[in-house]
Amino acid sequence: MYKRQVYGDGLAILVGDALLTLAFEVLAHDVRPAQAALACCRELTKAAGAAQLVGGQADDLAGVDAANDLESLKSIHRRKTGAMFLASLKLGAITAGADHVQLRALEDYGAALGVAFQISDDLLDVEGNEAALGKRVGKDAGRGKLTFPGLLGIEESRQWAVALVDEACTALAGLGPRAASLEALARYVLERDR
Amino acid sequence: MYKRQVYGDGLAILVGDALLTLAFEVLAHDVRPAQAALACCRELTKAAGAAQLVGGQADDLAGVDAANDLESLKSIHRRKTGAMFLASLKLGAITAGADHVQLRALEDYGAALGVAFQISDDLLDVEGNEAALGKRVGKDAGRGKLTFPGLLGIEESRQWAVALVDEACTALAGLGPRAASLEALARYVLERDR
Repeated sequence: MYKRQVYGDGLAILVGDALLTLAFEVLAHDVRPAQAALACCRELTKAAGAAQLVGGQADDLAGVDAANDLESLKSIHRRKTGAMFLASLKLGAITAGADHVQLRALEDYGAALGVAFQISDDLLDVEGNEAALGKRVGKDAGRGKLTFPGLLGIEESRQWAVALVDEACTALAGLGPRAASLEALARYVLERDR
Repeated sequence: MYKRQVYGDGLAILVGDALLTLAFEVLAHDVRPAQAALACCRELTKAAGAAQLVGGQADDLAGVDAANDLESLKSIHRRKTGAMFLASLKLGAITAGADHVQLRALEDYGAALGVAFQISDDLLDVEGNEAALGKRVGKDAGRGKLTFPGLLGIEESRQWAVALVDEACTALAGLGPRAASLEALARYVLERDR
Protein backbone atom coordinates (compact mmCIF):
# COMPACT_ATOMS: atom_id res chain seq x y z
CA MET A 1 0.00 0.00 0.00
CA TYR A 2 3.08 2.27 -0.12
CA LYS A 3 2.54 5.28 -2.29
CA ARG A 4 5.47 7.36 -3.49
CA GLN A 5 5.32 10.92 -2.17
CA VAL A 6 4.46 13.68 -4.60
CA TYR A 7 7.11 16.06 -3.26
CA GLY A 8 9.96 13.68 -2.51
CA ASP A 9 11.67 12.55 0.69
CA GLY A 10 13.77 15.68 1.18
CA LEU A 11 10.83 18.06 1.31
CA ALA A 12 8.79 15.64 3.43
CA ILE A 13 11.56 15.56 6.04
CA LEU A 14 11.79 19.36 6.01
CA VAL A 15 8.03 19.72 6.48
CA GLY A 16 8.29 17.46 9.54
CA ASP A 17 11.10 19.60 10.96
CA ALA A 18 9.13 22.77 10.21
CA LEU A 19 5.97 21.50 11.92
CA LEU A 20 7.84 20.26 14.98
CA THR A 21 9.51 23.66 15.26
CA LEU A 22 6.16 25.42 14.69
CA ALA A 23 4.66 23.56 17.66
CA PHE A 24 7.34 25.04 19.92
CA GLU A 25 6.91 28.43 18.28
CA VAL A 26 3.18 28.53 19.05
CA LEU A 27 3.82 27.55 22.67
CA ALA A 28 6.73 29.94 23.21
CA HIS A 29 5.00 32.89 21.53
CA ASP A 30 1.33 32.58 22.40
CA VAL A 31 0.96 30.98 25.83
CA ARG A 32 0.77 33.34 28.82
CA PRO A 33 2.23 33.80 31.37
CA ALA A 34 5.88 32.99 30.66
CA GLN A 35 5.95 30.22 33.29
CA ALA A 36 3.05 28.42 31.56
CA ALA A 37 4.67 28.83 28.12
CA LEU A 38 7.87 27.33 29.47
CA ALA A 39 6.02 24.46 31.17
CA CYS A 40 4.30 23.73 27.85
CA CYS A 41 7.63 23.70 25.99
CA ARG A 42 9.06 21.31 28.60
CA GLU A 43 6.04 19.04 28.33
CA LEU A 44 6.33 18.87 24.54
CA THR A 45 10.08 18.17 24.59
CA LYS A 46 9.40 15.27 26.95
CA ALA A 47 6.60 13.84 24.77
CA ALA A 48 8.18 14.38 21.34
CA GLY A 49 11.80 13.47 22.09
CA ALA A 50 13.87 10.32 22.31
CA ALA A 51 12.27 9.24 25.58
CA GLN A 52 8.77 9.05 24.13
CA LEU A 53 7.58 9.61 20.55
CA VAL A 54 10.93 9.24 18.77
CA GLY A 55 12.00 6.37 21.04
CA GLY A 56 8.75 4.49 20.54
CA GLN A 57 8.91 4.92 16.79
CA ALA A 58 12.56 3.82 16.74
CA ASP A 59 11.72 0.66 18.70
CA ASP A 60 8.81 0.06 16.37
CA LEU A 61 11.10 0.41 13.33
CA ALA A 62 13.69 -1.86 14.92
CA GLY A 63 11.07 -4.56 15.40
CA VAL A 64 11.34 -4.66 19.20
CA ASP A 65 7.72 -5.80 19.22
CA ALA A 66 8.82 -8.94 17.42
CA ALA A 67 9.40 -10.26 20.95
CA ASN A 68 5.69 -11.11 20.81
CA ASP A 69 5.31 -9.56 24.19
CA LEU A 70 2.42 -7.49 25.52
CA GLU A 71 4.68 -5.27 27.62
CA SER A 72 6.80 -4.30 24.59
CA LEU A 73 3.71 -3.56 22.54
CA LYS A 74 2.20 -1.44 25.33
CA SER A 75 5.50 0.37 25.82
CA ILE A 76 5.76 1.27 22.15
CA HIS A 77 2.19 2.56 21.97
CA ARG A 78 2.45 4.37 25.29
CA ARG A 79 5.35 6.34 23.84
CA LYS A 80 4.09 6.75 20.26
CA THR A 81 0.36 7.42 20.55
CA GLY A 82 -0.02 7.77 24.30
CA ALA A 83 2.57 10.50 24.74
CA MET A 84 0.86 12.67 22.09
CA PHE A 85 -2.56 12.14 23.71
CA LEU A 86 -1.10 13.12 27.08
CA ALA A 87 0.75 16.13 25.69
CA SER A 88 -2.41 17.40 23.97
CA LEU A 89 -4.32 17.18 27.24
CA LYS A 90 -1.59 18.65 29.40
CA LEU A 91 -0.72 21.57 27.13
CA GLY A 92 -4.37 22.62 27.15
CA ALA A 93 -4.59 22.16 30.90
CA ILE A 94 -1.40 24.08 31.65
CA THR A 95 -2.50 26.92 29.37
CA ALA A 96 -5.83 27.05 31.22
CA GLY A 97 -4.04 27.21 34.57
CA ALA A 98 -4.98 23.73 35.82
CA ASP A 99 -3.75 22.73 39.29
CA HIS A 100 -1.81 19.56 40.12
CA VAL A 101 -4.90 17.53 41.01
CA GLN A 102 -6.57 18.40 37.71
CA LEU A 103 -3.38 17.65 35.77
CA ARG A 104 -3.07 14.30 37.48
CA ALA A 105 -6.67 13.41 36.58
CA LEU A 106 -5.99 14.25 32.94
CA GLU A 107 -2.80 12.17 32.99
CA ASP A 108 -4.72 9.13 34.22
CA TYR A 109 -7.46 9.78 31.65
CA GLY A 110 -4.96 10.17 28.80
CA ALA A 111 -2.86 7.14 29.72
CA ALA A 112 -5.89 4.83 29.70
CA LEU A 113 -7.40 6.45 26.61
CA GLY A 114 -4.14 6.14 24.66
CA VAL A 115 -4.08 2.35 25.04
CA ALA A 116 -7.83 2.07 24.38
CA PHE A 117 -7.45 4.08 21.19
CA GLN A 118 -4.62 1.85 19.95
CA ILE A 119 -6.58 -1.32 20.70
CA SER A 120 -9.60 0.06 18.80
CA ASP A 121 -7.31 0.99 15.95
CA ASP A 122 -5.96 -2.55 15.79
CA LEU A 123 -9.50 -3.94 15.98
CA LEU A 124 -10.61 -1.76 13.06
CA ASP A 125 -7.64 -3.01 11.04
CA VAL A 126 -8.53 -6.60 11.84
CA GLU A 127 -12.20 -6.09 10.99
CA GLY A 128 -11.24 -4.29 7.79
CA ASN A 129 -8.96 -7.15 6.81
CA GLU A 130 -11.59 -9.77 7.64
CA ALA A 131 -14.27 -7.96 5.64
CA ALA A 132 -12.00 -7.26 2.69
CA LEU A 133 -10.02 -10.48 2.54
CA GLY A 134 -12.04 -13.03 4.47
CA LYS A 135 -8.74 -13.95 6.07
CA ARG A 136 -8.15 -15.32 9.53
CA VAL A 137 -7.02 -12.61 11.91
CA GLY A 138 -4.04 -12.98 14.17
CA LYS A 139 -0.45 -11.95 14.26
CA ASP A 140 -0.52 -10.97 10.59
CA ALA A 141 -3.24 -8.38 11.00
CA GLY A 142 -2.11 -4.85 10.31
CA ARG A 143 0.58 -5.42 7.71
CA GLY A 144 2.54 -8.11 9.52
CA LYS A 145 2.97 -6.08 12.70
CA LEU A 146 2.19 -7.30 16.16
CA THR A 147 -1.20 -6.02 17.36
CA PHE A 148 -3.33 -6.28 20.48
CA PRO A 149 -5.88 -8.63 18.84
CA GLY A 150 -2.97 -10.63 17.48
CA LEU A 151 -1.63 -11.12 21.00
CA LEU A 152 -4.84 -11.31 23.02
CA GLY A 153 -7.52 -12.30 20.55
CA ILE A 154 -10.39 -10.08 19.41
CA GLU A 155 -12.78 -10.63 22.28
CA GLU A 156 -10.26 -10.03 25.05
CA SER A 157 -8.98 -6.95 23.23
CA ARG A 158 -12.53 -5.55 23.02
CA GLN A 159 -13.16 -6.15 26.71
CA TRP A 160 -9.88 -4.51 27.64
CA ALA A 161 -10.70 -1.44 25.54
CA VAL A 162 -14.07 -1.13 27.31
CA ALA A 163 -12.37 -1.44 30.71
CA LEU A 164 -9.78 1.20 29.77
CA VAL A 165 -12.44 3.64 28.60
CA ASP A 166 -14.26 3.15 31.91
CA GLU A 167 -10.97 3.77 33.72
CA ALA A 168 -10.43 6.94 31.67
CA CYS A 169 -13.91 8.22 32.50
CA THR A 170 -13.49 7.38 36.20
CA ALA A 171 -10.33 9.50 36.24
CA LEU A 172 -12.45 12.48 35.14
CA ALA A 173 -14.88 12.20 38.07
CA GLY A 174 -13.30 14.96 40.13
CA LEU A 175 -13.46 17.45 37.26
CA GLY A 176 -17.27 17.61 37.26
CA PRO A 177 -19.53 18.47 34.33
CA ARG A 178 -16.81 20.47 32.56
CA ALA A 179 -15.23 17.12 31.61
CA ALA A 180 -18.35 15.91 29.73
CA SER A 181 -16.76 16.37 26.30
CA LEU A 182 -13.67 14.41 27.35
CA GLU A 183 -15.92 11.61 28.54
CA ALA A 184 -17.81 11.65 25.22
CA LEU A 185 -14.48 11.54 23.38
CA ALA A 186 -13.44 8.48 25.37
CA ARG A 187 -16.75 6.70 24.65
CA TYR A 188 -16.35 7.54 20.96
CA VAL A 189 -13.15 5.47 20.85
CA LEU A 190 -15.32 2.36 21.35
CA GLU A 191 -17.89 3.40 18.75
CA ARG A 192 -15.82 4.76 15.89
CA ASP A 193 -15.85 2.69 12.73
CA ARG A 194 -12.94 4.30 10.89
CA MET B 1 29.95 10.81 -3.53
CA TYR B 2 26.64 9.73 -1.94
CA LYS B 3 27.07 7.01 0.63
CA ARG B 4 24.15 4.92 1.80
CA GLN B 5 23.49 5.38 5.53
CA VAL B 6 24.38 2.54 7.85
CA TYR B 7 21.14 2.79 9.84
CA GLY B 8 18.64 3.59 7.10
CA ASP B 9 16.52 6.62 6.30
CA GLY B 10 13.87 6.01 8.95
CA LEU B 11 16.26 6.08 11.89
CA ALA B 12 18.18 9.01 10.41
CA ILE B 13 14.98 11.08 10.26
CA LEU B 14 14.11 10.11 13.84
CA VAL B 15 17.58 11.12 15.07
CA GLY B 16 17.05 14.52 13.45
CA ASP B 17 13.69 14.91 15.19
CA ALA B 18 15.20 13.78 18.50
CA LEU B 19 18.09 16.26 18.28
CA LEU B 20 15.85 19.16 17.29
CA THR B 21 13.60 18.35 20.26
CA LEU B 22 16.65 17.97 22.53
CA ALA B 23 17.78 21.50 21.64
CA PHE B 24 14.46 22.86 22.93
CA GLU B 25 14.66 20.58 25.96
CA VAL B 26 18.05 21.93 26.99
CA LEU B 27 16.83 25.52 26.62
CA ALA B 28 13.51 24.97 28.39
CA HIS B 29 15.03 23.00 31.27
CA ASP B 30 18.43 24.51 31.91
CA VAL B 31 18.33 28.23 31.13
CA ARG B 32 17.50 30.57 34.02
CA PRO B 33 15.48 32.68 34.63
CA ALA B 34 12.25 31.57 32.93
CA GLN B 35 12.09 34.70 30.78
CA ALA B 36 15.55 33.96 29.34
CA ALA B 37 14.65 30.30 28.73
CA LEU B 38 11.54 31.39 26.87
CA ALA B 39 13.44 34.01 24.86
CA CYS B 40 15.93 31.28 23.86
CA CYS B 41 13.12 28.94 22.77
CA ARG B 42 11.62 31.75 20.68
CA GLU B 43 14.96 32.52 19.10
CA LEU B 44 15.52 28.89 18.15
CA THR B 45 12.01 28.47 16.69
CA LYS B 46 12.68 31.52 14.51
CA ALA B 47 16.06 30.23 13.32
CA ALA B 48 15.19 26.55 12.83
CA GLY B 49 11.71 26.86 11.33
CA ALA B 50 10.20 27.46 7.93
CA ALA B 51 11.23 31.11 7.87
CA GLN B 52 14.94 30.36 8.15
CA LEU B 53 16.75 27.01 8.24
CA VAL B 54 13.97 24.83 6.83
CA GLY B 55 12.95 27.46 4.29
CA GLY B 56 16.50 27.99 3.09
CA GLN B 57 17.07 24.27 2.74
CA ALA B 58 13.76 23.85 0.89
CA ASP B 59 14.70 26.61 -1.57
CA ASP B 60 18.08 25.00 -1.98
CA LEU B 61 16.47 21.62 -2.74
CA ALA B 62 14.01 23.23 -5.14
CA GLY B 63 16.90 24.75 -7.08
CA VAL B 64 15.88 28.36 -6.50
CA ASP B 65 19.57 29.22 -6.80
CA ALA B 66 19.41 28.06 -10.38
CA ALA B 67 18.35 31.65 -11.06
CA ASN B 68 22.10 32.32 -11.12
CA ASP B 69 21.48 35.27 -8.92
CA LEU B 70 23.65 36.54 -6.07
CA GLU B 71 20.64 37.67 -4.02
CA SER B 72 19.06 34.19 -4.12
CA LEU B 73 22.34 32.57 -3.15
CA LYS B 74 22.85 35.01 -0.25
CA SER B 75 19.25 34.53 0.86
CA ILE B 76 19.61 30.75 0.97
CA HIS B 77 22.86 30.87 2.92
CA ARG B 78 21.60 33.61 5.24
CA ARG B 79 18.77 31.28 6.22
CA LYS B 80 20.66 27.96 6.19
CA THR B 81 24.07 28.70 7.68
CA GLY B 82 23.59 32.29 8.83
CA ALA B 83 20.54 31.65 10.98
CA MET B 84 22.36 28.90 12.92
CA PHE B 85 25.39 31.15 13.44
CA LEU B 86 23.12 33.90 14.72
CA ALA B 87 21.11 31.58 16.95
CA SER B 88 24.31 30.16 18.50
CA LEU B 89 25.49 33.67 19.32
CA LYS B 90 22.15 34.93 20.58
CA LEU B 91 21.30 31.93 22.75
CA GLY B 92 24.61 32.33 24.54
CA ALA B 93 24.12 36.08 24.85
CA ILE B 94 20.55 35.80 26.17
CA THR B 95 21.62 33.15 28.68
CA ALA B 96 24.40 35.45 29.87
CA GLY B 97 21.95 38.33 30.28
CA ALA B 98 23.20 40.50 27.39
CA ASP B 99 21.45 43.82 26.84
CA HIS B 100 19.95 45.03 23.55
CA VAL B 101 23.07 46.86 22.44
CA GLN B 102 25.24 43.79 23.00
CA LEU B 103 22.71 41.56 21.23
CA ARG B 104 22.63 43.92 18.27
CA ALA B 105 26.44 43.86 18.03
CA LEU B 106 26.40 40.06 18.00
CA GLU B 107 23.68 40.05 15.33
CA ASP B 108 25.79 42.24 13.06
CA TYR B 109 28.85 40.11 13.76
CA GLY B 110 26.99 36.86 13.07
CA ALA B 111 25.30 38.08 9.89
CA ALA B 112 28.63 39.11 8.33
CA LEU B 113 30.44 36.03 9.60
CA GLY B 114 27.77 33.68 8.23
CA VAL B 115 28.28 34.89 4.67
CA ALA B 116 32.08 34.97 5.07
CA PHE B 117 32.02 31.38 6.31
CA GLN B 118 29.95 30.21 3.35
CA ILE B 119 32.25 31.98 0.86
CA SER B 120 35.30 30.38 2.47
CA ASP B 121 33.52 27.02 2.33
CA ASP B 122 32.88 27.46 -1.38
CA LEU B 123 36.50 28.54 -1.92
CA LEU B 124 37.79 25.43 -0.13
CA ASP B 125 35.57 23.28 -2.36
CA VAL B 126 36.89 24.99 -5.45
CA GLU B 127 40.49 24.67 -4.33
CA GLY B 128 39.92 21.03 -3.39
CA ASN B 129 38.44 20.37 -6.81
CA GLU B 130 41.27 22.17 -8.56
CA ALA B 131 43.91 20.26 -6.64
CA ALA B 132 42.20 16.93 -7.04
CA LEU B 133 40.88 17.21 -10.56
CA GLY B 134 42.88 19.99 -12.19
CA LYS B 135 39.56 21.19 -13.48
CA ARG B 136 38.57 24.73 -14.28
CA VAL B 137 36.45 26.25 -11.53
CA GLY B 138 33.19 28.01 -12.17
CA LYS B 139 29.54 27.29 -11.91
CA ASP B 140 30.18 23.56 -11.72
CA ALA B 141 32.30 23.76 -8.59
CA GLY B 142 30.78 22.09 -5.57
CA ARG B 143 28.78 19.28 -7.14
CA GLY B 144 26.95 21.31 -9.78
CA LYS B 145 25.55 23.81 -7.28
CA LEU B 146 25.77 27.54 -7.60
CA THR B 147 28.57 28.96 -5.45
CA PHE B 148 30.02 32.36 -4.62
CA PRO B 149 33.22 31.73 -6.62
CA GLY B 150 31.06 30.41 -9.44
CA LEU B 151 29.12 33.67 -9.52
CA LEU B 152 31.82 36.19 -8.64
CA GLY B 153 35.09 34.49 -9.48
CA ILE B 154 37.69 33.38 -6.95
CA GLU B 155 39.49 36.66 -6.43
CA GLU B 156 36.38 38.75 -5.88
CA SER B 157 34.98 36.09 -3.52
CA ARG B 158 38.21 36.17 -1.46
CA GLN B 159 38.14 39.95 -1.21
CA TRP B 160 34.53 39.92 -0.17
CA ALA B 161 35.21 37.35 2.56
CA VAL B 162 38.03 39.54 3.90
CA ALA B 163 35.75 42.59 3.90
CA LEU B 164 32.98 40.65 5.69
CA VAL B 165 35.36 39.41 8.38
CA ASP B 166 36.51 43.01 8.92
CA GLU B 167 32.86 44.05 9.15
CA ALA B 168 32.20 41.27 11.68
CA CYS B 169 35.17 42.37 13.82
CA THR B 170 34.13 46.02 13.64
CA ALA B 171 30.71 45.05 14.99
CA LEU B 172 32.46 43.67 18.08
CA ALA B 173 34.24 46.95 18.88
CA GLY B 174 31.79 48.03 21.59
CA LEU B 175 32.13 44.73 23.46
CA GLY B 176 35.76 45.36 24.44
CA PRO B 177 38.42 42.73 25.18
CA ARG B 178 35.83 40.09 26.18
CA ALA B 179 35.09 39.68 22.46
CA ALA B 180 38.67 38.68 21.60
CA SER B 181 37.80 35.03 21.05
CA LEU B 182 34.94 35.96 18.72
CA GLU B 183 37.34 38.13 16.74
CA ALA B 184 39.85 35.25 16.56
CA LEU B 185 37.05 32.95 15.38
CA ALA B 186 36.17 35.37 12.60
CA ARG B 187 39.80 35.66 11.48
CA TYR B 188 40.06 31.87 11.47
CA VAL B 189 37.35 31.70 8.79
CA LEU B 190 39.87 33.23 6.38
CA GLU B 191 42.70 30.94 7.44
CA ARG B 192 41.08 27.53 7.76
CA ASP B 193 42.12 24.96 5.19
CA ARG B 194 39.43 22.34 5.80
